[in-house]
Amino acid sequence: MHRMRQEIAHQPAAILETLEQERPHIAEVARRLCDEGIRFVLLVARGTSDNAATYARYLFQITNGRPAASAAPSVATLYNADVDLRECLMMGISQSGQATDVIECLEEAAELGAMTVALTNSEDSPICQAAQHVLITHARDEQSVPATKTYTTALAVIYTLSALWAQQADREQYLLRAVEAIEEEFQLEPLIEDRSERYRYMEACVVLARGVNLCTADEVALKLSETCYLVARGYSTAEFRHGPIAAVDEGFPVFVFAPRGPMDADILQTCRALRERRAELMVFSDVPEILEQAHIAVRMPGPLSETCAPIAYVVGGQLLAYHLSRHKGINPDEPRGLHKVTLTR
Amino acid sequence: MHRMRQEIAHQPAAILETLEQERPHIAEVARRLCDEGIRFVLLVARGTSDNAATYARYLFQITNGRPAASAAPSVATLYNADVDLRECLMMGISQSGQATDVIECLEEAAELGAMTVALTNSEDSPICQAAQHVLITHARDEQSVPATKTYTTALAVIYTLSALWAQQADREQYLLRAVEAIEEEFQLEPLIEDRSERYRYMEACVVLARGVNLCTADEVALKLSETCYLVARGYSTAEFRHGPIAAVDEGFPVFVFAPRGPMDADILQTCRALRERRAELMVFSDVPEILEQAHIAVRMPGPLSETCAPIAYVVGGQLLAYHLSRHKGINPDEPRGLHKVTLTR
Repeated sequence: MHRMRQEIAHQPAAILETLEQERPHIAEVARRLCDEGIRFVLLVARGTSDNAATYARYLFQITNGRPAASAAPSVATLYNADVDLRECLMMGISQSGQATDVIECLEEAAELGAMTVALTNSEDSPICQAAQHVLITHARDEQSVPATKTYTTALAVIYTLSALWAQQADREQYLLRAVEAIEEEFQLEPLIEDRSERYRYMEACVVLARGVNLCTADEVALKLSETCYLVARGYSTAEFRHGPIAAVDEGFPVFVFAPRGPMDADILQTCRALRERRAELMVFSDVPEILEQAHIAVRMPGPLSETCAPIAYVVGGQLLAYHLSRHKGINPDEPRGLHKVTLTR
Repeated sequence: MHRMRQEIAHQPAAILETLEQERPHIAEVARRLCDEGIRFVLLVARGTSDNAATYARYLFQITNGRPAASAAPSVATLYNADVDLRECLMMGISQSGQATDVIECLEEAAELGAMTVALTNSEDSPICQAAQHVLITHARDEQSVPATKTYTTALAVIYTLSALWAQQADREQYLLRAVEAIEEEFQLEPLIEDRSERYRYMEACVVLARGVNLCTADEVALKLSETCYLVARGYSTAEFRHGPIAAVDEGFPVFVFAPRGPMDADILQTCRALRERRAELMVFSDVPEILEQAHIAVRMPGPLSETCAPIAYVVGGQLLAYHLSRHKGINPDEPRGLHKVTLTR
């Protein structure tokens, strides 16, 4: 069995282990966020970790009422910009803990007055020296180049940090429900494996979601581009209707991730517009009306709290990318030209 | 002649008219930004205007030292999140002034304590009622669905606001140089028209840039998807090397926008990695070493101030999208399924 498939399967256990081992540290960081009167959050990350940052950006705004932004690492590392970061949290995410640009950003941010937190899967890595506070995902060794369990465990840490910072510890039960949902999703794997063969000769596609689930669209698109050598792009359904929908004609492949939530009407409207243009829809959802629009409907476990849903829904996309790569004869563990650690400035 | 082509040609005059008419208002807003002690900037926009927001996000960080973020409109409009926005500027950008989600965001932001500014091409539009301050792009009527002159005039306003807020009025000369560069670019149009035919049957591509020029990659990708019905995606070169580069094999089409600047070494390294994978490169640059990597080299006017370069460089991409759409027999003024004003929540 490929390591990617093993690592996908390890996710429920990895998340539970992360929560068990890391909760006290997360609670401590949440306390410091309150004590230091943090008003703004900046995230810095690359690749899959940047999709975890997108999740954090939505959560910290929706749940914690703090404006939150993805900072471009190049602002600190290549422009040496002098930014006033008092009352800011700068959170750097890097599974390997070796991303030099993320590390430089954290160091720079501390000098500019920020509180800094590193989120990583590598306890003894350089990023742990660079940040004032460190949070660890206990996903154990991830060997496949496409990240899976380091992503979902990072989301679990971010969710818990957001809940504890908001002093809503009761939210944590929703996270446990999302972990159960991942287990239930593995029952859908034969369907996903079977139907993904249809896309053997697909060269490009888009992946849609909305709101806090945008990270899922971006992350599934990244998994598809890494493991299946596609041009795959994630969009929010709103953004997609503002231009890129023009590219859609008969048979255009669209993947939709739509857990029940306040976005249902918007997503349904987009799906209908896509069907009018005769696009092909594969839909992961627990909303019957949205599933009805699909050529291939993957009825997901539910109901889930919408803000936790990204942790469960991405697994469907991971399985899609994994099985499609196998239908294409690609070894998903070692995509051509990629390494587990990419160094950029 | 298509309206899109006329509107591309109108850009130098539109920018100069915008500067002449709007500079006093921009100076007044810059003064208020200082007086109100604005420490953080949030941008809200959709489609092409969101690419202008990306430009603003880099400039306000690099030049003004203010953390700046693109806010997701859905946070305000669909989640009703209660965010503390004291000492924040919320800037909404909408050429039509009718984007309901952007308008709602501005209204909400004012209630949450933010200073609000609308940037629009439509003086009597609803967005002007929603914001405390209004800045107008004097691009006159834009009829072609793909936005061109409303984008570059918006960039010019943002650049000027950033320079005046930083009390560096001497920077404005660089903007005038960028306008001259646009005029010089029209001499490259026969080359771009001729060579773009090569991509008649291209179905997907990526567009790369780095740093403050990321907006150019995103905007050119959007123009290509709107007018040529491609799956086109903009990436920073750093982000691209963290995964999506796996999709690159022989003949994979990549468009690179690389004005001289602190990113040269990074872009050159990416171009070499792409050549090793036998990708096809069309490069818009004034850096000889980067141009040497190209199959099709478009030697751009230079030198330009890197922070102004997006205003000039996007025009090369607009011409590329325009001529490619004509080679494909598409009417670029009226892409299928798009309207000039898209309403989303």
